[in-house]
Formats: sequence, structure tokens, C-alpha cells
Amino acid sequence: MRILILNGPNLNLLGTREPHIYGSTSFDAFLPDLRKSYPADDIQLHQSNIEGELVEALQQAPTRYDAVVLNAAGYSHTSVALRDTLATLSIPVIEVHISNIHAREEFRHNSLTGSVSKGVISGLGLDGYRLAIDHLQRAKS
Amino acid sequence: MRILILNGPNLNLLGTREPHIYGSTSFDAFLPDLRKSYPADDIQLHQSNIEGELVEALQQAPTRYDAVVLNAAGYSHTSVALRDTLATLSIPVIEVHISNIHAREEFRHNSLTGSVSKGVISGLGLDGYRLAIDHLQRAKS
Amino acid sequence: MRILILNGPNLNLLGTREPHIYGSTSFDAFLPDLRKSYPADDIQLHQSNIEGELVEALQQAPTRYDAVVLNAAGYSHTSVALRDTLATLSIPVIEVHISNIHAREEFRHNSLTGSVSKGVISGLGLDGYRLAIDHLQRAKS
Amino acid sequence: MRILILNGPNLNLLGTREPHIYGSTSFDAFLPDLRKSYPADDIQLHQSNIEGELVEALQQAPTRYDAVVLNAAGYSHTSVALRDTLATLSIPVIEVHISNIHAREEFRHNSLTGSVSKGVISGLGLDGYRLAIDHLQRAKS
Amino acid sequence: MRILILNGPNLNLLGTREPHIYGSTSFDAFLPDLRKSYPADDIQLHQSNIEGELVEALQQAPTRYDAVVLNAAGYSHTSVALRDTLATLSIPVIEVHISNIHAREEFRHNSLTGSVSKGVISGLGLDGYRLAIDHLQRAKS
Amino acid sequence: MRILILNGPNLNLLGTREPHIYGSTSFDAFLPDLRKSYPADDIQLHQSNIEGELVEALQQAPTRYDAVVLNAAGYSHTSVALRDTLATLSIPVIEVHISNIHAREEFRHNSLTGSVSKGVISGLGLDGYRLAIDHLQRAKS
Amino acid sequence: MRILILNGPNLNLLGTREPHIYGSTSFDAFLPDLRKSYPADDIQLHQSNIEGELVEALQQAPTRYDAVVLNAAGYSHTSVALRDTLATLSIPVIEVHISNIHAREEFRHNSLTGSVSKGVISGLGLDGYRLAIDHLQRAKS
Amino acid sequence: MRILILNGPNLNLLGTREPHIYGSTSFDAFLPDLRKSYPADDIQLHQSNIEGELVEALQQAPTRYDAVVLNAAGYSHTSVALRDTLATLSIPVIEVHISNIHAREEFRHNSLTGSVSKGVISGLGLDGYRLAIDHLQRAKS
Amino acid sequence: MRILILNGPNLNLLGTREPHIYGSTSFDAFLPDLRKSYPADDIQLHQSNIEGELVEALQQAPTRYDAVVLNAAGYSHTSVALRDTLATLSIPVIEVHISNIHAREEFRHNSLTGSVSKGVISGLGLDGYRLAIDHLQRAKS
Amino acid sequence: MRILILNGPNLNLLGTREPHIYGSTSFDAFLPDLRKSYPADDIQLHQSNIEGELVEALQQAPTRYDAVVLNAAGYSHTSVALRDTLATLSIPVIEVHISNIHAREEFRHNSLTGSVSKGVISGLGLDGYRLAIDHLQRAKS
Amino acid sequence: MRILILNGPNLNLLGTREPHIYGSTSFDAFLPDLRKSYPADDIQLHQSNIEGELVEALQQAPTRYDAVVLNAAGYSHTSVALRDTLATLSIPVIEVHISNIHAREEFRHNSLTGSVSKGVISGLGLDGYRLAIDHLQRAKS
Amino acid sequence: MRILILNGPNLNLLGTREPHIYGSTSFDAFLPDLRKSYPADDIQLHQSNIEGELVEALQQAPTRYDAVVLNAAGYSHTSVALRDTLATLSIPVIEVHISNIHAREEFRHNSLTGSVSKGVISGLGLDGYRLAIDHLQRAKS
Repeated sequence: MRILILNGPNLNLLGTREPHIYGSTSFDAFLPDLRKSYPADDIQLHQSNIEGELVEALQQAPTRYDAVVLNAAGYSHTSVALRDTLATLSIPVIEVHISNIHAREEFRHNSLTGSVSKGVISGLGLDGYRLAIDHLQRAKS
Repeated sequence: MRILILNGPNLNLLGTREPHIYGSTSFDAFLPDLRKSYPADDIQLHQSNIEGELVEALQQAPTRYDAVVLNAAGYSHTSVALRDTLATLSIPVIEVHISNIHAREEFRHNSLTGSVSKGVISGLGLDGYRLAIDHLQRAKS
Repeated sequence: MRILILNGPNLNLLGTREPHIYGSTSFDAFLPDLRKSYPADDIQLHQSNIEGELVEALQQAPTRYDAVVLNAAGYSHTSVALRDTLATLSIPVIEVHISNIHAREEFRHNSLTGSVSKGVISGLGLDGYRLAIDHLQRAKS
Repeated sequence: MRILILNGPNLNLLGTREPHIYGSTSFDAFLPDLRKSYPADDIQLHQSNIEGELVEALQQAPTRYDAVVLNAAGYSHTSVALRDTLATLSIPVIEVHISNIHAREEFRHNSLTGSVSKGVISGLGLDGYRLAIDHLQRAKS
Repeated sequence: MRILILNGPNLNLLGTREPHIYGSTSFDAFLPDLRKSYPADDIQLHQSNIEGELVEALQQAPTRYDAVVLNAAGYSHTSVALRDTLATLSIPVIEVHISNIHAREEFRHNSLTGSVSKGVISGLGLDGYRLAIDHLQRAKS
Repeated sequence: MRILILNGPNLNLLGTREPHIYGSTSFDAFLPDLRKSYPADDIQLHQSNIEGELVEALQQAPTRYDAVVLNAAGYSHTSVALRDTLATLSIPVIEVHISNIHAREEFRHNSLTGSVSKGVISGLGLDGYRLAIDHLQRAKS
Repeated sequence: MRILILNGPNLNLLGTREPHIYGSTSFDAFLPDLRKSYPADDIQLHQSNIEGELVEALQQAPTRYDAVVLNAAGYSHTSVALRDTLATLSIPVIEVHISNIHAREEFRHNSLTGSVSKGVISGLGLDGYRLAIDHLQRAKS
Repeated sequence: MRILILNGPNLNLLGTREPHIYGSTSFDAFLPDLRKSYPADDIQLHQSNIEGELVEALQQAPTRYDAVVLNAAGYSHTSVALRDTLATLSIPVIEVHISNIHAREEFRHNSLTGSVSKGVISGLGLDGYRLAIDHLQRAKS
Repeated sequence: MRILILNGPNLNLLGTREPHIYGSTSFDAFLPDLRKSYPADDIQLHQSNIEGELVEALQQAPTRYDAVVLNAAGYSHTSVALRDTLATLSIPVIEVHISNIHAREEFRHNSLTGSVSKGVISGLGLDGYRLAIDHLQRAKS
Repeated sequence: MRILILNGPNLNLLGTREPHIYGSTSFDAFLPDLRKSYPADDIQLHQSNIEGELVEALQQAPTRYDAVVLNAAGYSHTSVALRDTLATLSIPVIEVHISNIHAREEFRHNSLTGSVSKGVISGLGLDGYRLAIDHLQRAKS
Repeated sequence: MRILILNGPNLNLLGTREPHIYGSTSFDAFLPDLRKSYPADDIQLHQSNIEGELVEALQQAPTRYDAVVLNAAGYSHTSVALRDTLATLSIPVIEVHISNIHAREEFRHNSLTGSVSKGVISGLGLDGYRLAIDHLQRAKS
Repeated sequence: MRILILNGPNLNLLGTREPHIYGSTSFDAFLPDLRKSYPADDIQLHQSNIEGELVEALQQAPTRYDAVVLNAAGYSHTSVALRDTLATLSIPVIEVHISNIHAREEFRHNSLTGSVSKGVISGLGLDGYRLAIDHLQRAKS
């Protein structure tokens, strides 16, 4: 299965950014472990801090991938543009948030992008990415 | 690992209730499959339609279980009582919603119980329960 | 026709509870009169003050009744759980309120349960139950 | 008993207007049937699309009628003028809505006119008019 | 001075309508008294229950009158149409409310028409009309 | 093509009403020009300041016209009655506003009537009517 | 008649304060004129910029005056304390605002003090004080 | 004096539940002390986590008790059903909250049940129960 | 124990002010009784109608008193200044309201000052002051 | 006339993106047709998914173009940055939306960019671009 | 340059009041330092806890000072009276907040007084006063 | 001291953009003057119209600079992404707005980025940058 992990703003800082909220493992340290767990799959990571680049990565995803695991971070709560791109996609998208968005500031409770994803996993740390991939595999088979 | 799956109102109807939203598998048909996947674990199901009985089941959970997978259904969005019980618990609780709460009516977007759970999995069908258990096991080890 | 009259919290107090709002006839005094008007029909009353018991009574109604007349009283305005049960029912439900909910406090104007019932009769006293039954009979024939 | 049925905007289109919501019977086809059911009564129909004409019909109603069955349609939700006229009336008024206002757009949930009527019947189709008359008769006797 | 008193919906009922709020004097009984107090002036009364007729009366007022005393009653709080007409007028308009709009229901606190009038007199009964005329005269001289 | 231009309240004042907002050309001066541009078409104008008359003109339009260009002016933002009439129409309706409703007071931003029209043209002055007709013609062919 | 004119914050600046809104006459210049118009009456002025002093002036007013003309200025919109004092008074109070509060910022539309006064005169400049006194005299006789 | 202490959801956990908010004394440890202070009185405790059981306990209270001290906990903020029961009671009810509801989350600031109680004591710990009883005794004598 | 009773606006009117809400006992009549109940304590009363004087009395309280019983009346709901003073105090403050703030107008439900006090007693009349003192004594010992 | 058509996020997907809403013609297929209709004009298309690139394209437009037709898509409803750029422009801008923004989700009703454009055309499909150009030409001449 | 530093409620407590928010330097300790930095200027301090005294100090400022540095503290967020005084001033006023009002409770985010000041400096501690003076000097020269 | 001035969207237009609001000096003309005032410091300017580039510039700032002066312009009010980046920074950030955000449209009153900056300077023109640097220097020493 070809899966795109698409990470939004500030996720390149993972491991150093507010570790009491987001943990102390960087995504670069996590990715090899993740790939090792899914040796038969092609898992690619794309990170961008730019809303429009995330829009474009999502637009192009169906030509190269079977599914997307999306963590749009801060844009999840405000981006109508990303929400509109998601509504055009034919492949499944699962939204992941490392921290529990329901337990934080009120402006994080609503997820525009989550409302047009298949589902949302929030608060389970980096393991949320793994769970999303597990689900995509089981849903596919 | 001893895990309590605590299901709230109308989840006893699963399989017949609005199958376009909740799927056509009943929880009784799903549970044996689930247990088969975790032969080393003790997975118990408790369902109640009564808010106060869910409060009590949660209160007693720490004496018998290592973790809870909670789907409080309609009470998730309105119950301060359940929210208060969750705040007292010392064992991890993961909230699961079969349908994607962000994609439905506005009164389902907010989760009082989710705000005091470890995390929330929503929209991934019955597989959400499996993912929650997987996470609890990995987080424990 | 088999009809369940399902009464919610405090309706067991009818006749003594705020008689300037709800009248001075108890439901026990009213029921024999009501049944006398519909000798060919099987009209049963169930009252509960517990939200979850109302959920259960509604869940089981389709196996025993052709229709439900529901007065969920205070739960009408807050219960997502009851709303969800109503959405699963295959038999018609008519919501009755003894007092006019539009003429009282703002928190009574909205009816979560009414939004998934066939219709709502409000403000016509105990006669609302009779009108609901009349309608169910005409709609059936 | 002399009863005025007062219909507001677009109810002259009944039968052709959005039949999936309002049914396919016109009021002209319904009225003779209705009158036949109440041979001893004088039932008159007045329809107007103009808010101020409805105000005037209501103002004059007490001199000619014993009661009013009012369906102010779209004006129910916005007309302070009609609400004020209703507050002056000495004869009973029952508000009828053909569709269930609680099940439609949020701007239809609130009824300014219903808040100063005796009661509201909503969602029971044209039968709502019949139920209103039945109640008026029973309440009178 | 030529002054138009323009009265809106239900003001034709004055004297009989909710006398605890609006007093027991009809406008017909009040008008001769009022005219007697201003023998040198031409005071005309126009009442309509129809929003659009009030719009038209206001549109035509500048060709026949030097000023308007407007009591748009229930339309004051909802009519963008009347507000727009008032914004086109070159002659002064004073809004009068017989009852104190700040002391009644919240939907009466806001006055769309008052926001484009010269001023508002509210709560001083029929005397408000007299005060409005006094002011128009003093402001003119 | 037979087209009804239906103008709402205060549009009879065009040319004199707040010319800095609405321009200084009257609709009477504009109409002959407009017709000259569409010699093959039958373009009729109906203006009314009365909400209910606009309701009626819209109700009757399908029997005489192929399309409607509607400027409901102040009623656009408040009239559930007009909104309901529009929902019944089988011919296309395009809403035109002379001024830019998004650039004015907040109560003009929302358009109840526009939400059930085919589209909305706002802020382009009288030319908006011309653009609406152009579109109707192209959409028809 | 003994009348207290009670002026709130910044009214001591009248005549120099934003003259395009409040006019260019100071209250000191206006008062002698006002008294001359009511030679038989005892008209006293009290001005304070301090909310609590206005509370006290109102508390003591009934022992020395027959009525109050109150312009609480900025405190009108925020002071629960003044509102509570007004609710205790046995003598009539009329609220005056020099500018039209409905035509200014939204935070001036609501009047806490006006809601417990007999009535409100707003937007008629200093003449509002005169009109208030005229009304008090007519209402008394 | 016969007094019912009626405790709602999670109060059976007192002493172990979030002790930094609710203190470390259980109600079972507190009750004997409390009774010792009022040797002449009959003080009974009823605790339930179920909203409807609290409704029933309140309904029956007047037949057995002279007064109620109610701590409805999480239901205080959401239960229209309990609010309606309280409105039917003829004996005095005082609401007690152990923590200061004004100092916590916004959803705890409003008390539906407190609005139909005689008064509310909040934030004074278990001593609030004692104060409530003291007041009931003084108010009775 | 040295206790300051700090009363806010209009509490000097107690006994004459709206006795159906606040009772008919003046604070001057109540204070000697209160002191007699606590012969070993030094209970001082300070009343001011001026927000800033209440600020100052609170600021100075810790140098002279062991605790404060505060009834800020109308300022409780609006004063950020008083709220800020309370946040600086090292001695306990209990807020008392004679009437039940939850049972009155919505603008009284929120208490800015109560949110930074130890607790709030509301609706128990003058006895609320006594209860506050009882609690302060027990909490101290 | 030199006209820039500036298209925002996801408009590069036109023709494949949700064709039931946006139609099945791509912009690339539409542009040659459009240019053919305006042989004397220079019509350039710029599309970007990146908010800041749209800002820059707008900033530079006045140096190269006489007018802009802007469809900022999802950014229309959220971008203060684009709104601020538009406020600096000296050339006319017309906002076009392919779908009717008033008929879709509430978060699309408001247009920050439309509020500082000359006008808005919405719901008329790709023809909206043509109408915008027609208007620009007529307004110029 | 003659500059008035006008401090509002609780700023007399600076240094002892919540030092984690406001720092541990008192204004009395800070003022000599500040004056030493501006030997050529006349810098006066006025502090009051009374809203109306701040109104008066501002009213009189133009006769004695060239500019004002205002920290209205808690009144900044609620005082229409102070806002109205500021609108009358001819000399520049800069608002200073010691703590960052955007980082604290929501009721501190809005500044009524700041909206009619020249600018606002917030969150930079006592240095904010110095920066305000520096700006006033540069803006003057 | 090494200081990054980070300017957001449209600030490259300074001097030509709405000069009545933002002044007529361009940043390029201002920067040399600014540097001349701080000869010992290294002051760099980075401007971008792209939200994600500002995110990246902020992320990298701590490796090259001791402090940041940030004017995120239109993104200040909407960007959760920038707010999240600011929360990760270890060096001080001061937000500057050239115009007074409290005196402009309501959507500019709130500052998401300001809520996680050290402080905010708004309304003091380009001098705000200078004041920010002055503060950074004093706070450092």
C-alpha cells in the first residue's frame, strides 16, 4: 500500500516543540521505526509549513498514493482551502493530531479538515500515525 | 491486560440502527472476533443506556481493569456528570466514536467526555475499538 | 391499533405539579377516559423519570406497538441519547407537550426529540394526547 | 361554532409547492372535506400573502368568529406585528404548521406567533387543521 | 407646520389593545385634542397595518409634509425596508413608542427605524406624540 | 425570452435615493435602454413596496415568464415568506443588488432570498440587471 | 413641581465635547433659559462623573424632589448599581440622551437605566430635558 | 427537623476524587460528625448517580422531610428534569456546591437547579452542608 | 476574629428597597443582633456606593481584619477593578448576596467578584452574613 | 483592456472537483473560448493555491493590468491578508464565485475579500467570469 | 514636555499585587528613576481607584499637560464613561498595560479606552511607561 | 544584539498602502535610519506575504537572532500556525502594529500571535519598531 503522511506547520519541530504537549521524539527519528513495521508498504513523508503547498500535495496524492494520513496542525481549524481540497479526493484520508484537540484551547476543538476526512485520531501521540495506517490497511483488505 | 469496553446509549442497537451511519455489524457479532485478536487479554463489555450507570461503571473500573475504551454516544456531548467521573480516574481512557463526530450535526462536534480522556478516535467504525486497544497495549509496554 | 404513551420526568406528578401550568387532572384519572374513547385500541402507558429507561422503552416499542405518543418533558430539550433512539425507530412517534413550549423559558423552545419525531403538539393540555392518537389512526388508515 | 382558518404566505400554492414537504393536496380540495366533518359548524378560510392583511384579519376575527386556526407560514418566525395582534385577541387561536418546524432550518424553530397562541400543532400535515378544530370544540364544551 | 403622524400595525386598536401596556384612550379620541393644541398647524394621521404601505406613506411625505412623527410599532424592530425609506427622507422624522421599549422583551430593545430617525421618544404614552410635535416646532423655528 | 424584473421596496425612488450609494439614474430612465439592448425579448418591470405583493408576483411569474431578475432590496435579508416562494419556482431567478451587500451593514450580508436563487450579482449598479439577463440568455441556449 | 436634573459623566463638558454630536451649548448656558420657561417650578441640577455619587443623588432624590430627569451618559449602558437604585424609587424618572443612542455604537443601544425608568427621550438635543419636564408636569396634573 | 441531604453524581467518591478541588474527607466520615451537631434532628443522606433517581428522591421528599439540602453536582448545570421537579416542591431546598462554581469552567457558572432553589452555597467545602442546615433551622423557627 | 462586612451600592437602603426581594430589615437594625451573636469578635461594617471606595476598603482590609464578608451588589457582575483587588488579598473573602442571583435577571447570574472569592452564599437573606461568619470561624480554627 | 483573472486554491482542479457543484469544464478548456469573445483584450490567467502568492499577484496587478477578476475560493472567507491587499488597489476588482455562496455552508456566506471589491457575482458558473469582464468594459467606457 | 501619568484601580498596589503578573517594583520606586531619565520634562503621577476621578483627571489634563500616559487597569475593559472622556481630548493619550492583555482572560482582550487612544503598549512591564514617553517626545518634535 | 524584524503580508507596500492609516514612509526608507540609531546592533529585515514562510522564518530565528520584532499584519488575527510557532520559541518576540488595532474593525481586535508574544505595541506608527528594540535592549541588560 502506498501511503502519504502529510504533516503541516511546525511538525518539523517535533521533539523540540513544547515537549510536554507533543513529546520528545522527532518525526525523523520516528519514521524509520514506522517503515520497519510496514515492510511491504511504501510510506512517504511530506511536511510543509505553507497552507497552499499542503493543498497541492493533497491534490496530487491520488496519482501516487492509495491513502493519506494528514496532520494539518494549525491549519486544521481555519483552512477552508484545505477542506475544499479534501472534498475532491477519491482516496481515503485519516486526520491525526498528536495532542488531544478536545482538551486544549477552544479554537482547536473544531476541525474543518476533519469534517471531510474519513475519521480523526487525536491525543494518542505519534502512535496515532501507526493506528491510522493499521486502519487503512484493514479497511482496504 | 484487563480492558473494559464501556458502551453508552443505543449502542445495543448496533447493526440495526441507521446502518448507513453506524454499519451493519452488531457489537455481539464483533466482540468474539475482537477477543480472538487479543487472546492474552481480558476484554469485557458493559453497555448501558442510563447515564448514571455509566458513571458507576467508570467509577468501579479502576478496581477491576487496567484501561477503559469508552463510547458514551449521545452523552458524550452533554454529560457533565460523566466528564467529572473521568476526571477522577487513574487508569487511561480512550474515547471511541463509530461515526465521524466532526462530519455530523454541530451538537456532536464538542465532546465533554473526550476533553478529559487520553485521546479520541472517531469515524473509523468498529475498528476504532481495535485501534484503541492496540494503543493501550503499546502505551503500557 | 397498539399505542404506547411514553411519559418522561415529573409527569407522574401531573395534577399536583404547578397546576396553573399543567392543569389539575392526574394522568391516572385521564387514562381510563382516554381508553374509553378508543375501545378498539390497545393503549398502554409507561412513565419513567430516568432518561435511559425512556431510551429503552423507545427501543423496544416497535416490537410491541404500532406507534408512540412521547412526552419526554425536560429531556426533550437536552437529550441527544433520546434523539438518537428516535432516529432508529420505524414506527411513527408524535411528541406531545401539555404546556406551550414556545410560550415558556427560552431553553424550552428547542426540542431535540421533536426534531426527529413526525410532529409536535404543544400547549393543548391533556387533549394533546387524544389529538396525537386521532392523527395516528387517520394516518394509518 | 364559527371558526376562521387564516392561512399566510404561499399556502395558496399548497398541493403544488414542494410536495415532498407540504403534500400534494390543495387547500381548496381539502376544505369541502373538512367542512363535511363539521356540519354543525361555520368554517371560513381566509388566505393572504400580505403580513398586514393577516394582522387585519386577526383584528376583526373576534367580531365574527369564536376561534382561529392560524398558519402564518413564513411570517410565524419574523413578525412582531402579528405577534402583537395575537396578544390583543380574546378568542382562542391555535397555530398549525403543515411541516415539522423543529425538523427544518434553524430559522423555523422559533415561532413568535406560536408564543402568544394557545398551542401549536406542527408536522401532522393538513390533519393539523382538523386536530385544531377538534380541540377548539372540546375546549369550548 | 404640516405634520404627518404615521402609525403602524395594531395602533388602530389603541384603547382596547392590552390597556395595561398601551392605555385606554383610542387614537381617534386623542387626535381632536391634539389638533386643538396646535390650531395653527396641519396635523394628519395615517395608519396602516401593512409594512409596504408605511414605506409608501413615508416616500410621499416630503411632498406634503414638513415633518413626520412615526410609530412603526412591531415593524420598528424588523423592517430593513422602512429603515431604507427613512434614510432617503429630507424632512425630520421622530420615532415615538407608547410603551418603554427598553423595559419590554429583548426583541423590542433594538430599533432599526429609530437608528435613522432624528430621535426616539419611548414610554411616555400618547404624550410622546405631543412632545415630538413640540420638538419639531422648536427645532424649526 | 420573457423576463420579469421584480423590484422591491424603495427601488421606485432610484435616482433620488442616496445617490452616493445607488447612483443617479432612475429605473424608468434605465428601462428603455435596457429593452433596446434586447429587441427580441419581452422584458417587463414590476415594482412593489409590499412584501406580500412580491410573493404574489413571484408565484404568478412561471405562467407568464421564462425567468426572473429579482431585487428584493430590504426584504432580501428578512423575508422567510419570499424565500419560501422562491423555493417553489420552476423558472430560474437571479438576485441583483445595486450596491455591494458585503461592503455595507452586517444585517445586509446575509441574503435569505439569494440562498434559494440561482445566483447573486451585487455591487455592479444597474449593470447588474443587464448581466443577469445576459446570463439567463446564455444559460437558456 | 420640584425636579432634579441629574447629569452623569462628561456632561460638565457639554458645549466643548464633540460638538458635532452633542451641540455647542453648555449646560450652564442652557439652565437659566430652562428655568425661565418654568417660573413656578424648582429645577435643580446635579452633575457628577462618579457612578456611586449618582447612586446617592438618586437615593436621596425622593426626599427633596417630585421627579428626576436623568442623563446617566456612559453609565446608562453598564451600571447595574444605578439600575438597582432606580428600581427602588417611588418618584417618576425620565431618561434623556442628547444624541440618538440607536444611531451610535452598538454598546450604546442597550440602556440598563432606561429599562427601569418611566420612559426614554433620545436624540433631540438639550430640548430632550424640556420635553421630559413638560411630560412630568402633564403626567402629574 | 427532618432533613434530606441529596447528593448527585460522583459525590460517593468524595475524599478520593480530585482532593485538591473537593477535599480529602469522605461523606461517610463527615455524616456522623454532622449528625452529632444536630442531635435533635433527623438527617438522612441519599446519593445517586442517576438523574432520574434524584428526580424521584426529590418528588418523594415532601412526604418524609421538612427540607432538602441538594448537591446535584454535574446535573446542576444541565438538568431541566431536576429543575422541573424542584419547581413542584412545597418544602425549602438549598443547593450546596463543595467547590466554588464561579471559579471553575464556564459550563459550571450557570445552575438550572439553583435557579429554583431557595438559595445556593458554593465553595465552602463540606461546611456548606452545615451552613445550609443552620439556615433551614433558623428560617423555620 | 476581626471581620469586615463590606457592603456595596444600595445596601444602605436595605429594609426599604424592594422588600419583596430584599426583606424589610435594615442593616442598621440587623448589625447589633449580629454582633451580639459573636461577642468575642470584632465585626465592623463599611458601606459605599462608590466602586473605587470599595476597591480601597478591600485593599486596606488585610492590615486591620482577618477576613471579609463582601456583598458588592450591582458591582459584582461588572467590576473588573474589584475582581482585580480581590485577587491581591491574602485574607479570606466570602461573597454574600441577599437574593438568589441564579433566580433573577441573566446579567446577575455571573459574578466576577465571586470568581475570586473563597465562596458565595446567595438567596438566604441577611442570614447569609451570619453563615459567612460561622464559616470563617470554623475555617480558621 | 488588460485583465487579470486571478484564481485561488483548488480552481486548478475545475472540471474534476465536485462537478455537481462546480461543473465539468476545466478552466484550461474555458480560457480560449473566453479570449475568443474578447479579441481586442489582453486576458491573462494566474492561479495559485498559496494565499501569499495571491497577495503578491494582486499587489503587482496595477502595474500590468487595468482590472482584476478575482476568485479567491476558500481564502475569500478567512483571509485578512488578501482583504488588506485589495484595500490598497487602485484598479477595479470584481469577485466571482462559481457556486452560490449564499446557498452553501454558513462559513461561506461571509466574504472578507468581497467586502473590499467593487462587486460580487456568485452562483452563475464560469459565466460569472464573462459577466465580470463585460461589466469592467462597460464601466470603463 | 508636561506629561501626566494617570494610573487606575489597584496600581497603587504595584510591587505587592500578584508579582508574578505585575512585577515586584512599586510605582513610587519607579517614578524617581523615570523622572531622572527625562530631566527636561515635567512628569506628574496621578492614581485613583475611582472611575469618575479618572474621568475628571482626564478632563482637566489638557489645561496642564501636553500628553497623557493612561493605564486605566480594570476600567479599560468596561468604562464607556472613560472612553467618552478620551474622545473629547485634544492632547495625545497612549494607553499602557503592564501585563499582556492579549495573553490573559478574554474579558481583558478588548479595550474600550484603547480604542480612542493614539496607541496601546501592553505586556512590557513598567518599561511600557518609558516607551510611551519616548514616543510622545519623538511624535512632538 | 541581533534582532530580526519580521514583517508580514502587505508591509512591502508601506508608504503607498492606505497612507491615511499606515503613513507615507516605506520600510526601505525607514530601515537605514533605524540601523543608524543602533550602530552596535545587527538588525535584519525579512518580509514575506506567505504565512508558511513567516512560520519558517520564526522557526529559524533562534539560531541567528537574540530577539524578534514581529508584525504579522493580517495573519495576526487568524493564524493558528504562527501562534503555534511562537509558542515554541525561546527568544523574546514583541508584536508591533503600525495602526491601532483596537480602533479598527472588530476582526482586528483579537491577536492570536500577540497572545503568545511578550507584549504588543500598536498604533504608534513606525516608531513602534524602535520602541520594541529599545525594550528588548533594556530587558536584556
